Amino acid sequence: MVSTTANKESPLSKETYDALMQSSTATITTQLMKRGLRNAFLEGLSLSSRRQEKMVGVAFTLRCIPAREDIDVLSVFQDYDHPQRKAVESVGPGSVLVIDARGQTRAASLGHILATRIKERGAAGIVTDGTVRDMSGFEELELPTFSAGASPTTNLAKHHVVDMQLPIGCAEVPVYPGDVMVGDRDGVICIPRHLADEVARDCLEQEVLEEFILERVESGKPLRGTYPPDESTLKDYEEWRKKHKR
Amino acid sequence: MVSTTANKESPLSKETYDALMQSSTATITTQLMKRGLRNAFLEGLSLSSRRQEKMVGVAFTLRCIPAREDIDVLSVFQDYDHPQRKAVESVGPGSVLVIDARGQTRAASLGHILATRIKERGAAGIVTDGTVRDMSGFEELELPTFSAGASPTTNLAKHHVVDMQLPIGCAEVPVYPGDVMVGDRDGVICIPRHLADEVARDCLEQEVLEEFILERVESGKPLRGTYPPDESTLKDYEEWRKKHKR
Amino acid sequence: MVSTTANKESPLSKETYDALMQSSTATITTQLMKRGLRNAFLEGLSLSSRRQEKMVGVAFTLRCIPAREDIDVLSVFQDYDHPQRKAVESVGPGSVLVIDARGQTRAASLGHILATRIKERGAAGIVTDGTVRDMSGFEELELPTFSAGASPTTNLAKHHVVDMQLPIGCAEVPVYPGDVMVGDRDGVICIPRHLADEVARDCLEQEVLEEFILERVESGKPLRGTYPPDESTLKDYEEWRKKHKR
Amino acid sequence: MVSTTANKESPLSKETYDALMQSSTATITTQLMKRGLRNAFLEGLSLSSRRQEKMVGVAFTLRCIPAREDIDVLSVFQDYDHPQRKAVESVGPGSVLVIDARGQTRAASLGHILATRIKERGAAGIVTDGTVRDMSGFEELELPTFSAGASPTTNLAKHHVVDMQLPIGCAEVPVYPGDVMVGDRDGVICIPRHLADEVARDCLEQEVLEEFILERVESGKPLRGTYPPDESTLKDYEEWRKKHKR
Amino acid sequence: MVSTTANKESPLSKETYDALMQSSTATITTQLMKRGLRNAFLEGLSLSSRRQEKMVGVAFTLRCIPAREDIDVLSVFQDYDHPQRKAVESVGPGSVLVIDARGQTRAASLGHILATRIKERGAAGIVTDGTVRDMSGFEELELPTFSAGASPTTNLAKHHVVDMQLPIGCAEVPVYPGDVMVGDRDGVICIPRHLADEVARDCLEQEVLEEFILERVESGKPLRGTYPPDESTLKDYEEWRKKHKR
Amino acid sequence: MVSTTANKESPLSKETYDALMQSSTATITTQLMKRGLRNAFLEGLSLSSRRQEKMVGVAFTLRCIPAREDIDVLSVFQDYDHPQRKAVESVGPGSVLVIDARGQTRAASLGHILATRIKERGAAGIVTDGTVRDMSGFEELELPTFSAGASPTTNLAKHHVVDMQLPIGCAEVPVYPGDVMVGDRDGVICIPRHLADEVARDCLEQEVLEEFILERVESGKPLRGTYPPDESTLKDYEEWRKKHKR
Repeated sequence: MVSTTANKESPLSKETYDALMQSSTATITTQLMKRGLRNAFLEGLSLSSRRQEKMVGVAFTLRCIPAREDIDVLSVFQDYDHPQRKAVESVGPGSVLVIDARGQTRAASLGHILATRIKERGAAGIVTDGTVRDMSGFEELELPTFSAGASPTTNLAKHHVVDMQLPIGCAEVPVYPGDVMVGDRDGVICIPRHLADEVARDCLEQEVLEEFILERVESGKPLRGTYPPDESTLKDYEEWRKKHKR
Repeated sequence: MVSTTANKESPLSKETYDALMQSSTATITTQLMKRGLRNAFLEGLSLSSRRQEKMVGVAFTLRCIPAREDIDVLSVFQDYDHPQRKAVESVGPGSVLVIDARGQTRAASLGHILATRIKERGAAGIVTDGTVRDMSGFEELELPTFSAGASPTTNLAKHHVVDMQLPIGCAEVPVYPGDVMVGDRDGVICIPRHLADEVARDCLEQEVLEEFILERVESGKPLRGTYPPDESTLKDYEEWRKKHKR
Repeated sequence: MVSTTANKESPLSKETYDALMQSSTATITTQLMKRGLRNAFLEGLSLSSRRQEKMVGVAFTLRCIPAREDIDVLSVFQDYDHPQRKAVESVGPGSVLVIDARGQTRAASLGHILATRIKERGAAGIVTDGTVRDMSGFEELELPTFSAGASPTTNLAKHHVVDMQLPIGCAEVPVYPGDVMVGDRDGVICIPRHLADEVARDCLEQEVLEEFILERVESGKPLRGTYPPDESTLKDYEEWRKKHKR
Repeated sequence: MVSTTANKESPLSKETYDALMQSSTATITTQLMKRGLRNAFLEGLSLSSRRQEKMVGVAFTLRCIPAREDIDVLSVFQDYDHPQRKAVESVGPGSVLVIDARGQTRAASLGHILATRIKERGAAGIVTDGTVRDMSGFEELELPTFSAGASPTTNLAKHHVVDMQLPIGCAEVPVYPGDVMVGDRDGVICIPRHLADEVARDCLEQEVLEEFILERVESGKPLRGTYPPDESTLKDYEEWRKKHKR
Repeated sequence: MVSTTANKESPLSKETYDALMQSSTATITTQLMKRGLRNAFLEGLSLSSRRQEKMVGVAFTLRCIPAREDIDVLSVFQDYDHPQRKAVESVGPGSVLVIDARGQTRAASLGHILATRIKERGAAGIVTDGTVRDMSGFEELELPTFSAGASPTTNLAKHHVVDMQLPIGCAEVPVYPGDVMVGDRDGVICIPRHLADEVARDCLEQEVLEEFILERVESGKPLRGTYPPDESTLKDYEEWRKKHKR
Repeated sequence: MVSTTANKESPLSKETYDALMQSSTATITTQLMKRGLRNAFLEGLSLSSRRQEKMVGVAFTLRCIPAREDIDVLSVFQDYDHPQRKAVESVGPGSVLVIDARGQTRAASLGHILATRIKERGAAGIVTDGTVRDMSGFEELELPTFSAGASPTTNLAKHHVVDMQLPIGCAEVPVYPGDVMVGDRDGVICIPRHLADEVARDCLEQEVLEEFILERVESGKPLRGTYPPDESTLKDYEEWRKKHKR
């Protein structure tokens, strides 16, 4: 049985991090599908930052349940130990804050000030299946943030932050603390932690091969023989790798 | 600040239970709205049982996240301590098992055999914002079950049961362990536990008054003076109560 | 140009009423399509009454906008001239109260007491693209009610009744005061008033012919020659009509 | 590679048919999941017939694309060779007509007269991810029909029947001509044809075992040892089978 | 009781206008929530203009119901007094045209030529919960327009403009003529008119404080003590205000 | 009866192509509505390319049904004659590949390498009611692509490419092989082939007139007399055309 908690707190190796930074979510998704995982994509989330497109980090999870009018009142934010504030101050370097907002978009998961604090703490990104507020601030922030859009409404109107670092669902994908989150223009995916190293390594291989194939296709080659590459094309590929030192 | 955990394990008083059994969810919802709570209704769930329409019980919560193909395989059900099985054997007399299935209807939250065991344990009902399987079995079961419909697919295909007795969202309503779940033909509502006794008492009053008003309207009276009752109608009501010993 | 207001207040002729009571919504929809109208069906609404399945009546419209917390408070119902109460006391014999609830199902459009009053006033039915409360009461009511389901929540939580007898949309179908609403097990349709008499007449013809065709098909006849009827079948039909005095 | 066309026209063996008639869709779905198939359920369809609940038959597929106003006019039904009419006259004994209606519910896939003809031809059922018209007729029909509900609007308003006996999607499940459709109160599933015989056989086994387990649970047994059965329970089961001759 | 019609025609004071131009919708939404209003945000609408991001103006409402094929024909646009044209010529300086399109996106609420006329009349913006056509024209228009996207289809295909300056719902938010509409990158909100002046004043205060807090957080300060500010931070804030003359 | 197959393979005349390249989808949609066609717009698709906004071409159709786990495995892509690959190598110069993906967005219809090959073959564009992968590649591609967004997941996870050049539905619009697809910032529309020439000619006329009207409105003219133009304005228009040689 796969353990889902073993690497909850440990950072990614530099090698794996670097490989994933060079791999598209499309490539990673194919590598996961080879391993029987067809549901790694957090559908419906898009990037708000204009400054940084690529995100790789370790999942730090936060769970929200629906708000209740007598509990979730504005005064709770006076408490520095409110779970939402505590979570923000717990996200560490290299982590991605992943928020289960139940796909509820009518109130924001968080705003620009908290996101700035998260960036200052060295986090690698933010992911929510809800919304963010102060979108113009997020656009300029040097921290990739993926969300289901913008809502100016403060999170208390719809959300009650309840606990952190438990397994959650985000956009109908399971996210266990310690899993690896990767984001780019196609969106966000979640790599189960125990597969991260081998997937990263195989992705690098696939990326180089596809760069070569794309070159070929751009030069007018038909799919037959080229995509997927037959033996003759693979031979050319080996030479191309040597030549380009890839 | 309202405590949301104080009565997690304690049963309802007989008085409150009886009052709620005689009160419609419509009446209870109005009483909650008077107290500022507008979001008590678990929209979209319907009753599967043909045998018993009314449900009153204390929430016992179960949380599911999305399944992952390498973890959620059929063999896990060989384990009697699998969280789903453990939860079934933990629901006690007077409790309602409330399942957070994220509104995911493509696989069932549970089937007829587990539901039968829950009934045998003396539970008061089952609520899920997902689906159930073996619907024909549920129709004959003497245990009110409210769900978003039927799906023959076993829960592992979409769900991973992860923990129990934590606060959850169900159909976008917050449910804290110990809250009071009430169901009838209009659906299911959740009463925050600290309000249950006073709400139950006021509901009984409202139910009797509305029975009287309905009689009047059925006899041809216009709304003016009758609904809401003016002073003269209220006087008649007092006599009616005496006469009918209500 | 077609007038949409000419017959706002006038009742249906007995002939038209009787013909529509004998015609299915399926037949009427085909007759409307012959006249270029493809959008007469109020999709998504179902019948709550167990007592009466067929509804024919003249539209009396009521419009709701979203509620606002500082205006739509429970105390407004103390006012007998509140627009919702006024509308109930304005619906006359033979009318169908048609409510534009914007498809918002999270709070009921009305409850059993008001519906009872509407029945007492001689109305022919109720249609809302929202929900109703006290569903068990509606099931026993001798007044066909079509809605998008049940919600125990009182209408003030989501709705503000704003005006009546203006043209509205209901389930994305235009309804002008005076139009003819027809309901059965397939749902509800709206016939523009100026077409009601001719459509009713042609429907009766079609219903008799289809009864004859169904008999033939039930006796094993293939579609060819029978549905639609060719000349020989039409001849048999004429004899059948004579024989059965249809 | 699995062939998806081999048994397109051949009927089910009596043994397989009988076994599937005794198996619930819940049981079959579990057997398919054991074989790696998690997407066999046509979500969102319900049974309209009150007369017959269980359906087993071989898929005969029909495909609809959206209608176009200048092609899909009422006069096309004058043509007995119109694809919809031709399909109805092609469905044979033991077949289930499966209609790809793209989930479009605003116009019916077919009505009561055509369904009656299909029944007369000996078909085993009708499945559409769209709607049907004349619902009251379908309720009385001795032919199980599963649909996404009722719509009185004739199919031309939204549908153009284009071809038959090609592979289709229905409710986001692939259906190849010759596949086996099974329906009950939980809904409809599709069994790939090459698996039908072995799945049917294993389902029968599972059904008998679950009948025994249910008896045990109803007599108060806890899940531990019973569900799934441990060795001791399995021994009791063997005796129970002998005693009851199952 | 709050009057919803008192200021229907009166313009905003310069002070209130200026304050709202400097306030984000996020800040305004929080101020409204402090006053018990949780439903001010018109979810799902985005800005089409590339030229101007901020919008503040007084609501001028327009209501559409579904189109009917025999009434809503292209020839109606020959009439300069058609309600849509009349509305365009009635929107005055400082107003925002707010269109209730029932969330129907399949046909545009209006196109670039009418929008240009609205701009020429001095309006402050356009808001619809439907779509616009000629999106490339809107992108270059110096008039903030918020919509649910683009559709090339002319409004008659789905919409019938019926009346103006009545209370409407737009994206499930109540909008009364005279209310104040504010838009930015987070979307559009509606401020009930009687609250506009006090909300504007309090927003200005909050904006300055949050600017200071953001500076602190960007300089590495933790949330504790800073957000919300404790006494010591508030003291620093007072000095900062003096220094920066805010 | 209109033939839907006559021009399946023939290219557009240069005159029609040029006219449509100068016509907006808004204008074309109005011309189609004049001819009774209200459903030409493929709602919900947006342009991914930053390089080229306008698309005109002849529909080459591709149909997908839902994937099945035992058939749609990664190894099928080893086959150069896999239907998806064959379709890519069949799309010719001037064609638009139109993919029926049933609106299923959870797996991509195709990726950047195949799209590059399609561009190399001289195609005019790609349209899918599903998603694409490698969005950053599509943004730089000199081939207009319209889709429902991005998904990194390879198409096999949800799609089985089944056949090509059959009539399909795409975004609930019928598309027959040979129809004319036009795209711009408002989205994509489909012109039935037999209407393409006359619609193109009338669009050109309308575009010039609207350019003139827009100039007038920008110069402050009211709608009355200008939009639509009265006789006096039409006279000015004739002079304007002469002067500007339009």
